Amino acid sequence: MRFKTPVGISEIAAMINAEIVGNNIQHATGINEIHQVETGDIVFVDHPKYYNACLTSDATFIIINERVDFPSSKTLLIVEDPFEAYQKLVHHFRPFSPSMKMISDTAKIENSTVIMPGVYIGNEVSIGHHCIIHPNVTILDHCVLGDHVIVQSGTVIGSDAFYYNKKANRDIHYKKMKSCGRVVIENDVEIGAACTIDRGVSGDTRIGAGTKLDNMVHLGHDTNIGKNCLFAAQVGIAGATIIEDNVVLWGQVGVNKTLTIGKGAIVLGKSGVTSSLKGGKTYFGFPVGEAQQKRKELVWIKRIPLLWKKVMVDK
Amino acid sequence: MRFKTPVGISEIAAMINAEIVGNNIQHATGINEIHQVETGDIVFVDHPKYYNACLTSDATFIIINERVDFPSSKTLLIVEDPFEAYQKLVHHFRPFSPSMKMISDTAKIENSTVIMPGVYIGNEVSIGHHCIIHPNVTILDHCVLGDHVIVQSGTVIGSDAFYYNKKANRDIHYKKMKSCGRVVIENDVEIGAACTIDRGVSGDTRIGAGTKLDNMVHLGHDTNIGKNCLFAAQVGIAGATIIEDNVVLWGQVGVNKTLTIGKGAIVLGKSGVTSSLKGGKTYFGFPVGEAQQKRKELVWIKRIPLLWKKVMVDK
Amino acid sequence: MRFKTPVGISEIAAMINAEIVGNNIQHATGINEIHQVETGDIVFVDHPKYYNACLTSDATFIIINERVDFPSSKTLLIVEDPFEAYQKLVHHFRPFSPSMKMISDTAKIENSTVIMPGVYIGNEVSIGHHCIIHPNVTILDHCVLGDHVIVQSGTVIGSDAFYYNKKANRDIHYKKMKSCGRVVIENDVEIGAACTIDRGVSGDTRIGAGTKLDNMVHLGHDTNIGKNCLFAAQVGIAGATIIEDNVVLWGQVGVNKTLTIGKGAIVLGKSGVTSSLKGGKTYFGFPVGEAQQKRKELVWIKRIPLLWKKVMVDK
Repeated sequence: MRFKTPVGISEIAAMINAEIVGNNIQHATGINEIHQVETGDIVFVDHPKYYNACLTSDATFIIINERVDFPSSKTLLIVEDPFEAYQKLVHHFRPFSPSMKMISDTAKIENSTVIMPGVYIGNEVSIGHHCIIHPNVTILDHCVLGDHVIVQSGTVIGSDAFYYNKKANRDIHYKKMKSCGRVVIENDVEIGAACTIDRGVSGDTRIGAGTKLDNMVHLGHDTNIGKNCLFAAQVGIAGATIIEDNVVLWGQVGVNKTLTIGKGAIVLGKSGVTSSLKGGKTYFGFPVGEAQQKRKELVWIKRIPLLWKKVMVDK
Repeated sequence: MRFKTPVGISEIAAMINAEIVGNNIQHATGINEIHQVETGDIVFVDHPKYYNACLTSDATFIIINERVDFPSSKTLLIVEDPFEAYQKLVHHFRPFSPSMKMISDTAKIENSTVIMPGVYIGNEVSIGHHCIIHPNVTILDHCVLGDHVIVQSGTVIGSDAFYYNKKANRDIHYKKMKSCGRVVIENDVEIGAACTIDRGVSGDTRIGAGTKLDNMVHLGHDTNIGKNCLFAAQVGIAGATIIEDNVVLWGQVGVNKTLTIGKGAIVLGKSGVTSSLKGGKTYFGFPVGEAQQKRKELVWIKRIPLLWKKVMVDK
Repeated sequence: MRFKTPVGISEIAAMINAEIVGNNIQHATGINEIHQVETGDIVFVDHPKYYNACLTSDATFIIINERVDFPSSKTLLIVEDPFEAYQKLVHHFRPFSPSMKMISDTAKIENSTVIMPGVYIGNEVSIGHHCIIHPNVTILDHCVLGDHVIVQSGTVIGSDAFYYNKKANRDIHYKKMKSCGRVVIENDVEIGAACTIDRGVSGDTRIGAGTKLDNMVHLGHDTNIGKNCLFAAQVGIAGATIIEDNVVLWGQVGVNKTLTIGKGAIVLGKSGVTSSLKGGKTYFGFPVGEAQQKRKELVWIKRIPLLWKKVMVDK
């Protein structure tokens, strides 16, 4: 999430009651998460396991719960509970102030675009030229659609990330991480009916130009889908996964979080992708493997009775 | 389904043209199904296979198609077709009289709750404090939401049970069992986008406090979900299944009907649960097994070619 | 797609700049695809692999990119790019002119039918007697519903086919094939919440009388579902597949395109159907097989360790 204008880091520190360690006269340009962070961004970390990733990232400001060694290009903001500090900043810079009109006054929609009845378009949404938004679609605050985008009925763009902080003091419960990111949809994308595209937690969920989604496709927060991909119905992609250009996923494929599927890979129907896949190959099964290999496995399974007969009966 | 006030059993019997066998001066308090029945309730049964379950349940009144021995605490209502009798009672006590406004005049919604545009809220729905109901959500008659509940766009709460009476006289066809139950959602529950939560047939579908559902999660009629559960996207749970507290189901998991998943169980993505699972363990695969065991099976399958070589080639 | 009145073939040829080879004084009655084509129809073909299927089909007029031998009962319309010619005809005879009212003035809805709030009904939709269309349903142009049809909330009927022409000149991209077909839903069908039923590309997607769909069922374009079928939640059927009468598909089943599942077949939950299935049997697994056989395979897999011990350890 980008701030409208850069904000002095001492102002930020005051908001979250943080001790500044390092350069305190800089300005922060936004809040982001570790996968998408840029210079000028604030990032937060509350577990030593992830300290190093943050300290070596492009982030300039690190909200952290411990005083640690850090590169001179960074500044630490030390607080007791970095998660709560993050929530406070999101609440301040992107408060939830829902539009109560079906189409928000602050949405920018080009004249050549058709918005059909029953469509909700939130605050500061931007929609390009020659799009068709079919009836009963929901496009939530801050999402961006390019030109020639088609969104079919019942689809939801910009729903909150499924992202919770697990608390296990007395008993296990979950605290919602507020989503302040966006969904960015490039030109010539078509999204089928009843799809759900979650916004980034603080960065962007992105769908590359020319990609086509069938019905009931779910894209988790911060997924990054390449250009000219084809996803058939009921595909689900978990958070922060990267799908490169020209990938084809057939029906009911599931892809786990934070993976990468390489350019031009094809994953056959109903497969479950649990690790990153190289591009240019065809995959199948659950857990997924190269299709040829997995098909052989199916043949081998059918041969067990013969082995059994030979070893246990004929011997 | 609770009656607004108790109804004399002879009045009920007259409606459905039933012969009363037993105490005919009592009052019935509601209609319920065998899984959720309480004292004072009417239950119906039309197959000898289920006679005993009904006769030993907490139900006080049993609509049945045969005169059978019964405990002295019960009363039989004998009719030719118990299913039709049940339909008649539902039709009488909970007739379908849909609200034609987006928000029914009989819905009770606390002031601190935000109802966004395009939301339909049916008759006698109750929604607590500090909830957010995102655009284009549908909440149907009689459903109950607690406090701090978030429902994301496109979700449907209180759709009819998928529950039919199979008729196979001349040819197979299906007769709809009218749903008169509710969906009850406790405090701090979050429901993702484009989920569907079916109402109970005559009892309640329930989601326990603090539970979080991702997008496109389907809960069948009369499911009973515990507290602080986490269900990832595209999970589907069939009717009358019980999920205890702190259960985690990852993406695209399917759970069959009338099972129980014990407290704290974790079921990994894409698994298919076809029998009840003990709590506290991690499961995987289809049909599901303990994850460690199922992973070993995958390794064994890869060893078949070696066995084959040894037995069939080298011998 | 039927034309409102038959159109002279020379008029058609002029629109798409085609050379007529054969009888040029006939009239075309509509455009259709090869699976559903009837006498009087125009069909198009752009790949030699499918020439023969078109030339031996019931189509009277064939838009084709090569001069080939053809039966005397047919007429060829030769163009450079048959796909573009098809698009031009669809654009002419069924232009996209969306109704901007929630219920189009040209929709025909019988008085006894209940249309609840938030429902969109497009142009020239026809809905019979005693139907219930629940809140926030979308029924798009030209779809036809019979009598006693129930459609639950959030469902979309008549979304566009997921059907693209792959172009691989400089780089791979996809060109949308305009859908001009319909969805036809016969009497006594019930469709659950948040389902998506795609229209035919140029023919009909059809659901036979008495069939019941649970929530989140996806039917691809030109699927033909028989009478009194039962599909549980999250079932997905790809394009142009035929499901005969009395078929039961349990939860999360996926069925590939252009297959046939025979009368009365039962496919157990989570199965993946990748080839046509004979009727009257029960199937299971992925890839699907007869249930009994697939269950045996699961038992065989569990016996591999014993074989291993015998062959590799005891030997």
